Amino acid sequence: MKGDKNVDVQALKDIANKLRIDSIVATNASKSGHPTSCASMAEVMSVLFFHTMRYKVSAPRDPSSDRFILSKGHAAPILYAAWAEAGLFPVEELTHLRRVDSDLEGHPTPRLSFVDVGTGSLGQGLAVAAGMAYVGKYFDQVPYRVYCLIGDGEAAEGSVWESLHFASHYKLDNLVVIFDVNRLGQSEPTSLQHQLDVYDARLKAFGLHSLVVDGHDVAELAKAFDQAAATSGKPTAIVAKTFKGKGFPGIEDKDNWHGKALGAEGDKIVKHLQSQLANPSISIKPQPPTVQAPKVHISDITLSAPPAYKPGETVATRLAYGTALKKIADTNMRVIALDGDTKNSTFSDKLRNAYPDRYVECFIAEQNLVGVAVGAACRDRTVAFVSTFAAFFTRTFDQIRMAAISQSNINLVGSHCGVSIGEDGPSQMGLEDLALFRTIPTATVFYPSDAVSTERAVELAANTRGICYIRTSRPNTAILYPNDEVFKVGQAKLVRQSAKDQVLLIGAGITLHTALQAADTLKASGINARVLDPFTIKPLDTTAVLAHARACGGRVVVVEDHYQAGGLGEAVLSATASARDVVVSHLHVREVPRSGPPEVLLDKYGLSAPHIVNAVQAVMKL
Amino acid sequence: MKGDKNVDVQALKDIANKLRIDSIVATNASKSGHPTSCASMAEVMSVLFFHTMRYKVSAPRDPSSDRFILSKGHAAPILYAAWAEAGLFPVEELTHLRRVDSDLEGHPTPRLSFVDVGTGSLGQGLAVAAGMAYVGKYFDQVPYRVYCLIGDGEAAEGSVWESLHFASHYKLDNLVVIFDVNRLGQSEPTSLQHQLDVYDARLKAFGLHSLVVDGHDVAELAKAFDQAAATSGKPTAIVAKTFKGKGFPGIEDKDNWHGKALGAEGDKIVKHLQSQLANPSISIKPQPPTVQAPKVHISDITLSAPPAYKPGETVATRLAYGTALKKIADTNMRVIALDGDTKNSTFSDKLRNAYPDRYVECFIAEQNLVGVAVGAACRDRTVAFVSTFAAFFTRTFDQIRMAAISQSNINLVGSHCGVSIGEDGPSQMGLEDLALFRTIPTATVFYPSDAVSTERAVELAANTRGICYIRTSRPNTAILYPNDEVFKVGQAKLVRQSAKDQVLLIGAGITLHTALQAADTLKASGINARVLDPFTIKPLDTTAVLAHARACGGRVVVVEDHYQAGGLGEAVLSATASARDVVVSHLHVREVPRSGPPEVLLDKYGLSAPHIVNAVQAVMKL
Repeated sequence: MKGDKNVDVQALKDIANKLRIDSIVATNASKSGHPTSCASMAEVMSVLFFHTMRYKVSAPRDPSSDRFILSKGHAAPILYAAWAEAGLFPVEELTHLRRVDSDLEGHPTPRLSFVDVGTGSLGQGLAVAAGMAYVGKYFDQVPYRVYCLIGDGEAAEGSVWESLHFASHYKLDNLVVIFDVNRLGQSEPTSLQHQLDVYDARLKAFGLHSLVVDGHDVAELAKAFDQAAATSGKPTAIVAKTFKGKGFPGIEDKDNWHGKALGAEGDKIVKHLQSQLANPSISIKPQPPTVQAPKVHISDITLSAPPAYKPGETVATRLAYGTALKKIADTNMRVIALDGDTKNSTFSDKLRNAYPDRYVECFIAEQNLVGVAVGAACRDRTVAFVSTFAAFFTRTFDQIRMAAISQSNINLVGSHCGVSIGEDGPSQMGLEDLALFRTIPTATVFYPSDAVSTERAVELAANTRGICYIRTSRPNTAILYPNDEVFKVGQAKLVRQSAKDQVLLIGAGITLHTALQAADTLKASGINARVLDPFTIKPLDTTAVLAHARACGGRVVVVEDHYQAGGLGEAVLSATASARDVVVSHLHVREVPRSGPPEVLLDKYGLSAPHIVNAVQAVMKL
Repeated sequence: MKGDKNVDVQALKDIANKLRIDSIVATNASKSGHPTSCASMAEVMSVLFFHTMRYKVSAPRDPSSDRFILSKGHAAPILYAAWAEAGLFPVEELTHLRRVDSDLEGHPTPRLSFVDVGTGSLGQGLAVAAGMAYVGKYFDQVPYRVYCLIGDGEAAEGSVWESLHFASHYKLDNLVVIFDVNRLGQSEPTSLQHQLDVYDARLKAFGLHSLVVDGHDVAELAKAFDQAAATSGKPTAIVAKTFKGKGFPGIEDKDNWHGKALGAEGDKIVKHLQSQLANPSISIKPQPPTVQAPKVHISDITLSAPPAYKPGETVATRLAYGTALKKIADTNMRVIALDGDTKNSTFSDKLRNAYPDRYVECFIAEQNLVGVAVGAACRDRTVAFVSTFAAFFTRTFDQIRMAAISQSNINLVGSHCGVSIGEDGPSQMGLEDLALFRTIPTATVFYPSDAVSTERAVELAANTRGICYIRTSRPNTAILYPNDEVFKVGQAKLVRQSAKDQVLLIGAGITLHTALQAADTLKASGINARVLDPFTIKPLDTTAVLAHARACGGRVVVVEDHYQAGGLGEAVLSATASARDVVVSHLHVREVPRSGPPEVLLDKYGLSAPHIVNAVQAVMKL
């Protein structure tokens, strides 16, 4: 077992069968789960966890250890079995699988100490693994390796091919992608079945070092992982020919056994597998890592200089984002930026210009972009800021949803929100992004309305756990706050008030400015409007919203450059849901917009000052 | 110009340069747009529109015509120019580009008669084209051909590779994919630049007939399109080596010219290009289609038999979906189903079992799944129903957003919503899908609560324009309605009421049933609860909600198996926003859930009858 040419084949075979047994026992206890999907990868797990990988069982998230990502998360039981057999927890606990009082969930989540990210939505693991490998090779610069196991069914996900391209483009030779080609999907055979040559040709064309192996031959697998380690300049793909339900007589390679516990059949198969063990009490201690990863400090991040804007200046919040991103990168070496070929629009190029090594160009592949950031942020190795147009985060909703399950701390910045982008038209307008991010349980959603607050939003995001989203706008807007204004998450600002206000206006970004214009008009006609800048949409400053709404006779007008559902307006409605004395008028985009100048569109879609004035006049009558 | 070997090279060159001129003039008039991205594809457009394609200029959406999808939608001006030069509208109108009073938007939308789908979010065109080609080959069975032009930057999108795999798997030899490899992205060169051999190897490995050509050589292009037409059994990819800004002296193949009008420089270049025209008044009449596509009837779709459930029966709404899908397929030959390897969970396999030729297995590639459906529904050729787990539609939010811009009429069905799925855990739970679909301006959102209403939702969806979404649940639930109950979009049902109700309960799916249980408990303690089934969440029956809320003392409790933002609760809050006399208590999932039995999770996350009772007791005090 020590050294690459000295593989204890029988021991690894025994471990593989023990993992099979564990998987059957666990899924039989839970009466659900995917034992056949575990069986096809038993030898891969045995070789990886008990021969190839170097990791600390006692400290599963040690940054120096090799990483393993189970992209086909439904095979969770065999992942849990591997860690149990390695000694992290008693094997008997595997029978707690899928119980509400156990962290051994149906699909892996980081509630378990040995899981870095949640998986189970297919095709997402490789991007995460690539992000980890990028950090290992370029930032940590230590030789830990990253292994990602992908099912053949999920290899149809385009996101996998985005990540393969990324991995080869950046020469991630510390990354190994194992394809568990077990031929069978959930409801029928996969489209490629056992055409290993097709996988091999595609992977080679995508720039990987590709090896086709018998996925049930532990010696061949061990050799392949050695070859991967000896390969420089490109990631390795191991295309493992396997069989679903391998080693389960009567079930192996048969359709209609996806996602089913084996029941009484399972008990028989367990006995059969036990009879095959040369050494039923086999136990192998994994090898520890050899090189210590550097210690990393990623808290208490500050801007290198406070905002420095002049009164009367107009600055786009997207530009202020770039300015602040560079400033926090000044003070912390682990602040990194990632973008999808929009860096000269989102202004993430400000970081790249100052620190080219800390910018990761992900090209036009947003799913991989977000996944790589999740991977880069794992084990607290980096503070990752991801930017693209707000609209294109819709492309990554599944990744963001999974990032919440993964307890990820990534920061996402969406520029070009709403109709105020103008002529480019609806395909480029983020009109759903607030709804998207407000659904995320771990999210903090910033919607700054001037450059000063944008800079502080960036600084706060860098220090806030969970997923942070910052929504930035394309047009230049006036500076609203002094450079030394202090901002806090969940704390709204009043930008206009008097002792006799009759209506509360709430806007953000471009619409805070149209609300201020409306307040001017209203004042001239004798109506005093209070204007509130929520700063964060989630958490919304419910106390301030309610207090000021009541102070203004319970009359609220919310105006946002977003569709009706799930945005600022409905956040305000949720905040005032239990108040009998508050009415809310909500101005929002009501149809698919068209191309045109920003000011024209703001008016056409009901967000301009005259529309706000009309809404106030109507709400005064309620 | 007649016949493949008789290409009028000079004429096609002249047309290409006229298209370049038109693109410069249009973008100079709008002072924005992407003339250099147009220039790289000028010869492709010239050859396609004036030599290869067969289409009716007078009837741009004639179903018999060849189709062209401009996946790189930012090159819209040259698409507009091609139709203008073909005679659809005066070339002078191109100077209305991006004006709010013109349909010549920044990116193409079907507001224009010659555009089938909106493009501009990259990497989406090919799925649509593949859907059209699938319909042409397998349903219409006429020889119209489908052409899709993809930018090299967007070829990094994984969705493109999903679609390439789909196209080769289904042998779509009527599909031609043109890659405009102009080397330059928005903010830097693409990752592959001019490595044509890499594109070629990847495309061949993905099963395409791949041809590398000089994208500025009209003769070579014409020959390649002929070769594509002569190839059977596989789609053709034409990898065109091109230059961004081709033919623009001083700009061609230079960085930093993405998305910029040329201004004064443009006027000079127009003169230069004019000087190159052999025949400045050249005009070519496109060839019409040769075979007429069959007439298709897709309206007035009905269930072949009414719902037939017995009192006391319990049936999952996902199963009722499958039943109804088969029933509408009985009565209309153009009803088709698409799924991503979940057909035995969503029950779309009910259609497949009855009509295997009308089921399209899209495997685990949800972005392509939705895109293919959009393509299949174009020009009213099919009524497409797409199913997968509700959670996985998050993967396709960008496709759905674009489908709305595309004025698409697809029907999407998401099963396995919420914590009520149980042990599989959070990665499989759709908890954001209502927020997603409620943002879509053209969407109708059905959330049926029993099998009878589910069957009617399917029938209504088949006849409703726009995007329809049906949310189905995993567990069995009681039948609530008689088999002959009539349902309408936007019409809620009262499932319990009395003359002295004190609170209105609103639930849907599983939570309508927990609300009914709560009503039983409340009644025993002397509180009469009215219970409302909204049936559609969008449009919500605002009139009924308000009237019944007021009839119940303005006290409303909403309970939903979804996160807080954007779902049923906030829909109700939007409906009651202007009412001073209504308070709403909203029960929803507040954190990332975990694995466990459905009943346990419903209680743990606050959606069970006891929690509703508590909420009612609290709301009685407001």
